[in-house]
Amino acid sequence: MTTSDEQLRLARAYLAAVAEPPAPGLAQFVADCGPIRAAERVRNGRVPAAVSEEVEPRRGWINGEDVVSATAEASARLVIPEDADWPVEPLTSLREARAVGIAGVAEPLALWARGRASLAELLDSAVSIVGARAASGYGEHVSAELAHGVATAGWTVVSGAAYGIDGAAHRGALGAGRRSIAFLACGIDRDYPSGHTRLLRALADQGVVLSEYPPGSSPRRHRFLVRNRLIAAVGGATVVVEAAARSGAVSTANHADALGHPVLAVPGPVTARNSVGCHELIRSGRAVLVTGPADLLEVLQPLGGYPDDGWSEPGASSTQAPTQPQRDSLPALGRDVLDALAAGATAAEEVAIHVGVPVGKVRALLPELEFAGFVRRDETGWSARDT
Amino acid sequence: MTTSDEQLRLARAYLAAVAEPPAPGLAQFVADCGPIRAAERVRNGRVPAAVSEEVEPRRGWINGEDVVSATAEASARLVIPEDADWPVEPLTSLREARAVGIAGVAEPLALWARGRASLAELLDSAVSIVGARAASGYGEHVSAELAHGVATAGWTVVSGAAYGIDGAAHRGALGAGRRSIAFLACGIDRDYPSGHTRLLRALADQGVVLSEYPPGSSPRRHRFLVRNRLIAAVGGATVVVEAAARSGAVSTANHADALGHPVLAVPGPVTARNSVGCHELIRSGRAVLVTGPADLLEVLQPLGGYPDDGWSEPGASSTQAPTQPQRDSLPALGRDVLDALAAGATAAEEVAIHVGVPVGKVRALLPELEFAGFVRRDETGWSARDT
Repeated sequence: MTTSDEQLRLARAYLAAVAEPPAPGLAQFVADCGPIRAAERVRNGRVPAAVSEEVEPRRGWINGEDVVSATAEASARLVIPEDADWPVEPLTSLREARAVGIAGVAEPLALWARGRASLAELLDSAVSIVGARAASGYGEHVSAELAHGVATAGWTVVSGAAYGIDGAAHRGALGAGRRSIAFLACGIDRDYPSGHTRLLRALADQGVVLSEYPPGSSPRRHRFLVRNRLIAAVGGATVVVEAAARSGAVSTANHADALGHPVLAVPGPVTARNSVGCHELIRSGRAVLVTGPADLLEVLQPLGGYPDDGWSEPGASSTQAPTQPQRDSLPALGRDVLDALAAGATAAEEVAIHVGVPVGKVRALLPELEFAGFVRRDETGWSARDT
Repeated sequence: MTTSDEQLRLARAYLAAVAEPPAPGLAQFVADCGPIRAAERVRNGRVPAAVSEEVEPRRGWINGEDVVSATAEASARLVIPEDADWPVEPLTSLREARAVGIAGVAEPLALWARGRASLAELLDSAVSIVGARAASGYGEHVSAELAHGVATAGWTVVSGAAYGIDGAAHRGALGAGRRSIAFLACGIDRDYPSGHTRLLRALADQGVVLSEYPPGSSPRRHRFLVRNRLIAAVGGATVVVEAAARSGAVSTANHADALGHPVLAVPGPVTARNSVGCHELIRSGRAVLVTGPADLLEVLQPLGGYPDDGWSEPGASSTQAPTQPQRDSLPALGRDVLDALAAGATAAEEVAIHVGVPVGKVRALLPELEFAGFVRRDETGWSARDT
């Protein structure tokens, strides 16, 4: 680690600990000044009003060195945007949402991690699976099945660390011998809930446990809601398995929807309170109904490519794209989408209407088609490429 | 009955018995020549080829008088399009679908009825509730709840007469002291299934039992599928409660969808075979998810009018419409739809995209808005009226 690296890391540790997330003012300030100058100016109180509001309560008593040593004591590491394994692409939607002024949304300033795997690699193709803490046996079964299925197909499962749906999702992915990520709403040094100590250790071994809260942070109610935006942002799709009306899982789904990511929901008996949130999401058109891994994979990889196949890896460099995309090799939905774009549609919503499928499916398919070289996106929206 | 009435009834009885439904060629021939001439020409074999195919096997051995006396023996009556209580409006979509050449669809040439209630009145505001014969306790519970709820709100429940969802729907409506209609796939003189003899009697007393098959017709497999189009046509909406993939209930839903009527489906556990058909309907966008009577009524009467209120009666003469529609009195969805039309949308699908709701909701709402004087429809599609 060079001196400059160390400075950078100390500055990021200070910045990530000095404001309660989400801190859109501070995030913009760091983007404008760079982390080292930003940290210095925050420490000295020479910041714009929007930043001051966010940092004033803590700026005097947070110390970068203390944060860094608490991180080491917790056998954790601090991952910062300047690191090679920072998940740039998965967090882009949060940065963009913050930049256009969506209230209460900002990218994290750093992330604490337990587990050695590369965040960039793990989050390159990830599915968020969320739901009720007080889940039913049915919900836990479906959660584990979905996670097992998508993990086996090469997707990283992302969730919280709660009992119920979260835990079942992680166990499904780990049971498949695959990678799973838990986002905590407290410091990385806390095993919360304590009944999940062993699960969290398994996740750290086989995947990663992540938090944007500095070591020592306690799990407060609002932190779960704030944390949910991270789960929503990093998932290529977000699946709600069981959720009561106005629950945390529904808030995660709303975040994902607001960020333009596909949302899926698992139905259940209309007589079950735990399915009310899922049914509302489907009824309102925010979520596509999903019944199992096959449905989910259809949304995640509508062209039939699997992350493990190596060719349709979401987020992979476009130089890996097939040089001559073969329209006839596309499934019917892919060809229909190309026809809709050729007919003048430019937004996912328009395409969905042309084709007659839920917009979530189109939102999931367009980036795949872009990667495969069939379509492009510019400031006017989506269009078909001449192939 | 004048001689002419009797002639007409004998002609219709002959025509309805001479061809196996649906008989699009014969229906068109009757529309062109009138029933008395059509019956005479069919009997003599002087018909176009399309009609000949349909009537040749039976034209010689069917006798109108025999059909009429078999009807009387079954304590039934023959309802014909020339009768005041013929349900003109509910069957319009079938006539139109036949006229544009949709295969295998035609309006019935007459209907046999047990029960004295007026068909026109009962079918003026009707909801079809269909589903699996081998239903679960959950399915039967939800079916009865839905039927009870909409029947109490003044809607006539329509279904088949099978065990499972059909029976539960009728019992829900009858239990509310309201009207219910069963369409049989056999002659009106047959109690099929025999375990529903008492239910069919209760339906004849409190509602109507209907069939387009002449007395003596046995319940053959294809007749159930053909009968399903009638259930789909007369329902202002069709609700599928539990249905396996590629089941009769899904075929009814597909008929309703093809006729442009709203389709709704009740979700259930993804682990239940009986919910696969419902989930496919929802996932594909053909059906709106429905969780109970409140959801269903929202689709049936999105403006909040109830058939019992007398003002929003679907099919009622438009002269009863409020003379000065009050835009502000509309629920938010109604105002959003008017805005979408004002912005240039003309098709239900376009409106759905503008407003961001499933197209089924818009399809259900537009006729309500038309009746209330807010919108009009012409050959170019829907438009907002200046109010």
